[in-house]
Amino acid sequence: MRILITGAAGMIGRKLVARLTKDGRLNGKSIAAITLADVVAAEFPVGTVALNAHVGDLADTAFVGKLIATKPDVVFHLAGIVSGEAETNFELGYRVNLDGTRVLFDAIRLAQIAPRVVFTSSIAVYGAPFPAKITDDFLTTPLTSYGTQKVMSEALLADYTRRGFFDGIGIRLPTICVRPGKPNKAASGFFSNIIREPLAGQEAILPVPRDVVHTLASPRSAVNFLIHAAGLDGAGLGPRRNLNMPGVGVTVQEQIDALGRVAGAKAVALIKEQPDAAIWAIVKNWPTRFEAKRARDLGFVCEKTFEEIIRAHIEDELGGQLPK
Amino acid sequence: MRILITGAAGMIGRKLVARLTKDGRLNGKSIAAITLADVVAAEFPVGTVALNAHVGDLADTAFVGKLIATKPDVVFHLAGIVSGEAETNFELGYRVNLDGTRVLFDAIRLAQIAPRVVFTSSIAVYGAPFPAKITDDFLTTPLTSYGTQKVMSEALLADYTRRGFFDGIGIRLPTICVRPGKPNKAASGFFSNIIREPLAGQEAILPVPRDVVHTLASPRSAVNFLIHAAGLDGAGLGPRRNLNMPGVGVTVQEQIDALGRVAGAKAVALIKEQPDAAIWAIVKNWPTRFEAKRARDLGFVCEKTFEEIIRAHIEDELGGQLPK
Repeated sequence: MRILITGAAGMIGRKLVARLTKDGRLNGKSIAAITLADVVAAEFPVGTVALNAHVGDLADTAFVGKLIATKPDVVFHLAGIVSGEAETNFELGYRVNLDGTRVLFDAIRLAQIAPRVVFTSSIAVYGAPFPAKITDDFLTTPLTSYGTQKVMSEALLADYTRRGFFDGIGIRLPTICVRPGKPNKAASGFFSNIIREPLAGQEAILPVPRDVVHTLASPRSAVNFLIHAAGLDGAGLGPRRNLNMPGVGVTVQEQIDALGRVAGAKAVALIKEQPDAAIWAIVKNWPTRFEAKRARDLGFVCEKTFEEIIRAHIEDELGGQLPK
Repeated sequence: MRILITGAAGMIGRKLVARLTKDGRLNGKSIAAITLADVVAAEFPVGTVALNAHVGDLADTAFVGKLIATKPDVVFHLAGIVSGEAETNFELGYRVNLDGTRVLFDAIRLAQIAPRVVFTSSIAVYGAPFPAKITDDFLTTPLTSYGTQKVMSEALLADYTRRGFFDGIGIRLPTICVRPGKPNKAASGFFSNIIREPLAGQEAILPVPRDVVHTLASPRSAVNFLIHAAGLDGAGLGPRRNLNMPGVGVTVQEQIDALGRVAGAKAVALIKEQPDAAIWAIVKNWPTRFEAKRARDLGFVCEKTFEEIIRAHIEDELGGQLPK
């Protein structure tokens, strides 16, 4: 079993590498080697699985050719620039998120290796107006260039799968929470900041009303989705290859209540309300709840409550304990 | 008013040129010149409007740069290879239908001319299973490479419009009937053949059951859709820029009954049933009826009955009379 991971240096990528290195197996088979690709270098865990890291640009045909020459059985295509950057830098967004995907898919097609391809798409494929709960057959009309690039990549994935060039599955991730690391300027950052920072004894800003509803899943669940997608029976999926992943649909108030139950009133008191019109203008157009019936029926699982999401963060990032 | 038409040598393109040349005006303004582009040369009507025809490939940046240097106010982007060819020749399909569209859209973006762009998409963006009637918010999951290329082009059109690079409208044409010319091997060809050939005193093959339901519009209506789209107020459209066009939803039997009313039992007797499993395998997965509510509300009109479609063919192609 040989694996290729693009975007391996990103937050989800590094967690996936750590998981695969720890498991040593995927789809019941021993992992011989993992090829890692990203535009930046990263440190990866040393273990029994051979890791081969490459730094380069997926829109570069020669670079991608080198990656595909390793003849991977499973490709995790996570690489991409984020929503905000794709909106600010129009040409870079299309180059990385669309051309990069197409060059990768075409290299696989021409190599005739027909691997399983797991692609991380996003709920950004959807655009307002939304129903109260988005069903699996809701139409994709993105309102960002990032979402457009994801829609286009999903369409390629489905067509390349239909033609037998590979066996693809696109997974539309909900917002990942609690993201580890420092607060960032992403419009969705506060969903994580208001939990992570108080748990570390730091203040956090809440820029939107407390009745905002959003769907969240832990980084651990994101990795579980990827692993589960890698092993799914493609024949049972049919031609609609892009799936809404499950998540926990909660209000910000419910997030805060869960934080209180886990870490007490002192943690909750560190959240400062500071309305931000620019963030609200973006967030108010985001989808709220997802049915994700197909994914659940196919065995994708995630946390059931937001409290579980907080506890996953404490276990995975804080060594299982709240800081003193 | 300067106009650019890609795919100008095609059936719809030539009819659009004839109409614009005859009208001499578009959106209430006098037409100064029409630039025509296609991969093949064609004869165009000589009239008072200056026509400048160019032969070349839309995926060729230099060729497209020359077209856009004419600074069109309205671009009709009709160019593309058909469904069957895009399925047979994978790379050519993506090159013409996707890369051609992207090169054109990018040339417009870089020229900062922000014209109205009318793009002919197709009901091939949809894939089975279907509801009895497809609503405007039904999801796009194509089952052909052609449909995939249309979905991707539609997504680009919406994003480039949202960012202000141009003011785009995608129109998803139903099956055009009665297509003039010789019978061809397109799977949809019989919808036209069973009318056109008997009207000309020739036999025609019906390869599918008579209870097949399909949505049809005349070539004349297709041209009307294009002209109407050119003049629509973009501000009132919102971000969902790709519209299902109206059509006449009929069974094959209803088509034949209408032929009988127009041309008598002798014409009907020229239709020979000859089931074709290959054609049936394709046609049975096609959508049947469309609501097209948004398009109708926006003023797009077409024939109300299939008999009107036959009479439009007789007027436009047969000089208003049945052959003796």
